[in-house]
Amino acid sequence: MNVTGEIPDIVVGRLPIYLRELNRMARSEDNMTTSSRDLGHRLGISSAQIRKDLSHFGEFGKQGTGYHIGYLIDQLTQILHLKEEWGVAVVGAGYLGHALANYRGFQDRGFHVVCVFDKDLDKVGIKMGDLTVQGIDELEETIDRMNVEMAIIAVPVSVAQEITDRLVKAGVKALLSYVPIHLNVPEGVQVSYSDPVVQMQRMTYYLTPVATTAAESST
Amino acid sequence: MNVTGEIPDIVVGRLPIYLRELNRMARSEDNMTTSSRDLGHRLGISSAQIRKDLSHFGEFGKQGTGYHIGYLIDQLTQILHLKEEWGVAVVGAGYLGHALANYRGFQDRGFHVVCVFDKDLDKVGIKMGDLTVQGIDELEETIDRMNVEMAIIAVPVSVAQEITDRLVKAGVKALLSYVPIHLNVPEGVQVSYSDPVVQMQRMTYYLTPVATTAAESST
Repeated sequence: MNVTGEIPDIVVGRLPIYLRELNRMARSEDNMTTSSRDLGHRLGISSAQIRKDLSHFGEFGKQGTGYHIGYLIDQLTQILHLKEEWGVAVVGAGYLGHALANYRGFQDRGFHVVCVFDKDLDKVGIKMGDLTVQGIDELEETIDRMNVEMAIIAVPVSVAQEITDRLVKAGVKALLSYVPIHLNVPEGVQVSYSDPVVQMQRMTYYLTPVATTAAESST
Repeated sequence: MNVTGEIPDIVVGRLPIYLRELNRMARSEDNMTTSSRDLGHRLGISSAQIRKDLSHFGEFGKQGTGYHIGYLIDQLTQILHLKEEWGVAVVGAGYLGHALANYRGFQDRGFHVVCVFDKDLDKVGIKMGDLTVQGIDELEETIDRMNVEMAIIAVPVSVAQEITDRLVKAGVKALLSYVPIHLNVPEGVQVSYSDPVVQMQRMTYYLTPVATTAAESST
């Protein structure tokens, strides 16, 4: 599929956003086609950017008629390796683990939470949706048996690197971490981070503080 | 503070990650100073990148002695407008809203969840930590009275734009959205998105699908 050599990761990162909006259009609208202008308008992205991003992967639209929504969904699904569902392990059965294990947004988007672990014996055995929380000592055996390659971790900072090491050793190739630290992984293993505080601090940079005391006035 | 004109947003986005690691070092280690090499090593970022990022904001370190951790924390805290705590509204009291309202990671990092709303009358009145879930009809009055400028939304897709409009009209200037759609906001209002599926799809691009059927073999 890759027609122009290595694709910048920032481009790869926008494809899921295009796919999400295209799926929404396919579900809720009657139009069979869309244009880079229409898609861009819906996403706050320029039409030129969308055309350029998609052109890395081939020729998906026609001058004048635009993109066939179903075809573009199919192509993006293939490019992102989402034709088959990926099994996902969730480690940490606190509030966040609960939210993730019950998240309906995974449905039809390529992922399926297939196991949940916690080290807290009070949580082991609890039902989360269709799943039962397993003890952390079952992690390796379960991941190997179920051939799980993706994991989401929502554990305390103090154990996050150790859990990461165990997951990677068990065969996990991609990790989504909700733990607010940098994790070390071997070459070839993907890590993506989600930290609400990091996201909010990036925004407060652009805001004017509500209450500024004398000592803090800008110098 | 801004000594070299407009700072690229990608640089701004790395400052919270530097601050997070510096705070961790200040809490758990005896060292009073660090270097761009040490910090970079901990974060998987090159030392040159760190020096370049920080140089946008001034001269924080000395050749040979490195950065004084406490001073750098203080400066980054000021640059990111975190000297005073920001009150945050959480809208949506499902599993995720629960996780956010109870998230201890906000403590000492500049944010404090001060109100939680849900439209579901079964959830109104429920205690979440120190807070009580309020009805969505109290949103405007509460946000105005508490002078809240930041909000986190974890509501169904179908009501997300309407809630966003209400929050912005009530005075919210920055939104962290866990809803998997693009939100339209007026100029000057910040939005940051968190969608685990978008993050995971970006990673599967780099993975080899486990089971590839004949029909999907790359063409």
